[in-house]
Amino acid sequence: MENTHYSSLFSKDTTSFFRSPVRDIFKKVDLNAICSFAGGYPPAEAFPVEEIGVAIKNVISRYGSRCFQYGPTQGAPELRTALASRYGVDEDHIQVTTSSQQGIDVCTRILVDPGDVILTSNPTYLGALQSFKSYRACVHGVPHVQGSQEYAQTWRQTIIKLQEEGHCIKFLYIIPDFQNPSGETLSLEERHILAELSQQYGFIIIEDSPYRELRYEGNHIPSIYSLAPDRVLHLGSFSKILAPGFRLGWILGHPDLLDKIYVCKQSLDLCAPLMEQFVAEEFMRTGLLDANIEKNIQLYRHKRDTMLALLEKHMPQGVTWTKPEGGLFLWLTLPESINVMELYDNALGAGVAYVAGNFFRTDGKGFNTMRLNFSFIKEERMEEGISILSSLLKERCQ
Amino acid sequence: MENTHYSSLFSKDTTSFFRSPVRDIFKKVDLNAICSFAGGYPPAEAFPVEEIGVAIKNVISRYGSRCFQYGPTQGAPELRTALASRYGVDEDHIQVTTSSQQGIDVCTRILVDPGDVILTSNPTYLGALQSFKSYRACVHGVPHVQGSQEYAQTWRQTIIKLQEEGHCIKFLYIIPDFQNPSGETLSLEERHILAELSQQYGFIIIEDSPYRELRYEGNHIPSIYSLAPDRVLHLGSFSKILAPGFRLGWILGHPDLLDKIYVCKQSLDLCAPLMEQFVAEEFMRTGLLDANIEKNIQLYRHKRDTMLALLEKHMPQGVTWTKPEGGLFLWLTLPESINVMELYDNALGAGVAYVAGNFFRTDGKGFNTMRLNFSFIKEERMEEGISILSSLLKERCQ
Repeated sequence: MENTHYSSLFSKDTTSFFRSPVRDIFKKVDLNAICSFAGGYPPAEAFPVEEIGVAIKNVISRYGSRCFQYGPTQGAPELRTALASRYGVDEDHIQVTTSSQQGIDVCTRILVDPGDVILTSNPTYLGALQSFKSYRACVHGVPHVQGSQEYAQTWRQTIIKLQEEGHCIKFLYIIPDFQNPSGETLSLEERHILAELSQQYGFIIIEDSPYRELRYEGNHIPSIYSLAPDRVLHLGSFSKILAPGFRLGWILGHPDLLDKIYVCKQSLDLCAPLMEQFVAEEFMRTGLLDANIEKNIQLYRHKRDTMLALLEKHMPQGVTWTKPEGGLFLWLTLPESINVMELYDNALGAGVAYVAGNFFRTDGKGFNTMRLNFSFIKEERMEEGISILSSLLKERCQ
Repeated sequence: MENTHYSSLFSKDTTSFFRSPVRDIFKKVDLNAICSFAGGYPPAEAFPVEEIGVAIKNVISRYGSRCFQYGPTQGAPELRTALASRYGVDEDHIQVTTSSQQGIDVCTRILVDPGDVILTSNPTYLGALQSFKSYRACVHGVPHVQGSQEYAQTWRQTIIKLQEEGHCIKFLYIIPDFQNPSGETLSLEERHILAELSQQYGFIIIEDSPYRELRYEGNHIPSIYSLAPDRVLHLGSFSKILAPGFRLGWILGHPDLLDKIYVCKQSLDLCAPLMEQFVAEEFMRTGLLDANIEKNIQLYRHKRDTMLALLEKHMPQGVTWTKPEGGLFLWLTLPESINVMELYDNALGAGVAYVAGNFFRTDGKGFNTMRLNFSFIKEERMEEGISILSSLLKERCQ
């Protein structure tokens, strides 16, 4: 039986599904065998393996069989209390999720009908685009223009134009800290602008914040959630500060919004894994989480600095890149004549992987851009990777 | 800000969300303080806590940091190999899910548009109804009539009528072994009938099979999947045979169907927790899973027998119940004059919880039925619970 025999049965949503090229790269390539700047994986040494092992032992002896039982849909009370205290919110403003990817998905599910508009920065996180498109949303990407007056004007013009055309804007999706893929961070002024626009034009902001605690320089900037708690659903994640394998995240938001998410989550997967919630709570309570974040900040800051120095050393003229203050990624812009999709097989053949920038674009353009991850690759292999990549680019820059 | 301020933003799907009364009971009541026949929880003693602890230690020392890393969307290769061997299918016929509730949800997502028809038995699993309704499907419940000719005729007539009315039947959802909530099992003949109907009328069968390995008497009956592998998506789960807290299940099905599920799962939650997958694989490889299933069969068989004897001893005339050959539930039918919804607060006040039968019905009827779970309650408290419930019913039977 061929696919065609099923095609009349598939839902309309499936016509808008698209595969993650990042996940497809990982299916084909042994990441440890090449110099991988693709993906957003923490490296092996970022995981507090031993401490997690001890914490698991502790929670099993503390909670016994409860570790392996069904848990509450909202999340384990112990974890919600710890999150409430860490982030200064009431417990009824917290919903635990099975990964912040689920956070993105469930927020879209409760807000978006086919044809509704979602505003995003352009480029933006690929997994969010997958989710948005899978609900047949109209995704409108807006570039991050410099200067706060210009920034405000660009968003405002886009919003007014879309509303005049009769579109319904449901939410604006943004990663304000060390964005994936660009590595850029929104200024406090830009955050105020977005908060005000959401209030004025009546849409929600989905503030995706997985990298927020990984800041390598400069001062923390208030979250958009703190500026407009009634308009923002703030997505947090343990993936980048503890362990992605836990599949554990949380949403901060107004209880009326969270209530819809709660009911939806009952039918999505009932609850998140319970033992991981207890381990995360133990990590927070004992200070192990903060210690791990500090350790990872040291690790990633060094990798970022090495990466920036190597780009400076090897990259040909005409190539520019962002200098992220935190997070896991930076963004390369090449001369317009270079197409990173055409370069890709050569690069992989030469032992280097990256993610082509066009995959992060809402308009499918940006063929002269690429995302480079600096967290996963071993530091001693960075120069090999960057120098291979630079050579390939040099050939094409001439 | 009140809910009404958000209501214009919510998606159409949210209008069909409904809350699980079972999960709401659990939010209000300490299950250990009362005699609970509600829920479908395994009891504390069903969990191989010590063995899981050892297995976690083993997989951490075997796989190290990989336990806590992102995993493949299809599932860990080690687990898929073990499942393939256990269930006699090729690995490309297996998709690991973050619970079989997610299995139900993702199958519905890839197949159903608003208004499409889903056929179910009536009554059926509440969590499935939640998911189906959340996609605004038309759910048509069909009672389990006795006699295979009559069984075939009832389904066929329903299907023909719906198709004549112009409805699009996407799938038939069925729990063939020790159904939730009725405890009933489909005969081999009935399974053949459903397999043939799906082939003749071109719909898919979602075969939900969480209790299949918990058989206390009689012989295993082939799964519907084994009779029509191209038409069936078979949902498996570790929740009832190992640990619900793992949130780990799997789908067996044709690769063309699984491919759509795979791409959808990328945007739902990327992957299932990895360490649990390794632990489940270790349990299968070392025989610990089969030993645990055997232990649970002994435990639950005894509880079922005690429950059946107590019902026989205490229940007033006019009350009947099913005698399940496996699983976790039995189904009580009371005189038509009794309304279990009206009885509920009295019962809870007297220290007994059950789930009202109407919640499992696609037509909202069945007010004289209830589901009783016999796995969770401590055996020494069963008589107290059944005798309280019987007294309440006796008052109303007179």
